[in-house]
Amino acid sequence: MNVVTKTISFSTRGNTDIIDITDRVNKALVESKLKEGAVTISVIGSTGGLTTCEYEPGLISDLKRVIEELVPKNKGYAHDGGWEGGNAHSHLRASLFGASLTFPFVNGELLLGTWQQIIFIDFDTRARQRKVILQFLGV
Amino acid sequence: MNVVTKTISFSTRGNTDIIDITDRVNKALVESKLKEGAVTISVIGSTGGLTTCEYEPGLISDLKRVIEELVPKNKGYAHDGGWEGGNAHSHLRASLFGASLTFPFVNGELLLGTWQQIIFIDFDTRARQRKVILQFLGV
Amino acid sequence: MNVVTKTISFSTRGNTDIIDITDRVNKALVESKLKEGAVTISVIGSTGGLTTCEYEPGLISDLKRVIEELVPKNKGYAHDGGWEGGNAHSHLRASLFGASLTFPFVNGELLLGTWQQIIFIDFDTRARQRKVILQFLGV
Repeated sequence: MNVVTKTISFSTRGNTDIIDITDRVNKALVESKLKEGAVTISVIGSTGGLTTCEYEPGLISDLKRVIEELVPKNKGYAHDGGWEGGNAHSHLRASLFGASLTFPFVNGELLLGTWQQIIFIDFDTRARQRKVILQFLGV
Repeated sequence: MNVVTKTISFSTRGNTDIIDITDRVNKALVESKLKEGAVTISVIGSTGGLTTCEYEPGLISDLKRVIEELVPKNKGYAHDGGWEGGNAHSHLRASLFGASLTFPFVNGELLLGTWQQIIFIDFDTRARQRKVILQFLGV
Repeated sequence: MNVVTKTISFSTRGNTDIIDITDRVNKALVESKLKEGAVTISVIGSTGGLTTCEYEPGLISDLKRVIEELVPKNKGYAHDGGWEGGNAHSHLRASLFGASLTFPFVNGELLLGTWQQIIFIDFDTRARQRKVILQFLGV
């Protein structure tokens, strides 16, 4: 049993920018040379989230809309001092969606559906450089 | 340290059908012969979700109601081409609830509360045959 | 590769009491003597949840408000027999936020952001003594 920890980084535009990181995870899995085990994917930072979604443009726009409906911006949040323009909603959305995922792999391949992509959501209000950790535990 | 990967499959009726899979996970844990470690449970597909809940009929109906209130169906989602009858809401609900869980086990038993069941939620709009992966890492 | 399972316990006041458990997780990581791997953190019980959040008083009050808006209490839930005063909302909130997290560690340190704390949320309606499992898998 081995552990292999990798970091991927990429630019985002913020404001619920949704990035498909599946290919990056697959590439890192090949490099790890592990065949069977689980990968934990986690965000460093409190305004990013991870989940899975079919990466289809219509659905991505629907997801942005649902996120805004669930936790609207500019609702006079205390973290923003009651003002508009802060990023309290970014934090709150990140807490709701979660900052880590774990998925199994077998025969060197992630066990995901064809229409099931791993997505990073940048909830923050500005463009950022993001780091996501990929840690593979397995044989 | 060993890794044991199993697949369970079962029929669902779709439309927020909620299935208690705790007994299946416990059975697979016994078969794995592992005593201490963690099991990662994941859905293959983008319209199914996993979480925990007391599997009590009233609460299960409450959960279905909350899901409909959080992400209503037939809201003119782009993924459905703006029409009713699509499954955009199924995808969106799955992204919100998440497609994987990880739980520890010790002495060959999952560390769950008595009223804490592992549930699979089929958010899709039709009956399906579902596959869920159970991967045990441990000794 | 080793597995180390620990339990932490603490008192909560219920009613969306939000506890920062990051220091407890770090302390247990040091005690485990493991340097690289992943920790799975899980709640025993069906009315507690885990996520990450910047532990800042304004944001914590915002998070409590968002939780009440997402899954309000006293909505005539079936689990409460249609009455007020039950804890159906506690269960439903726990199912939405989730009962487990997994985070990687490297060089004996959790890979979290400076403003990213691990929080336990007690959704129940009364003060409780809570148990959270910390299971470290690694080398």
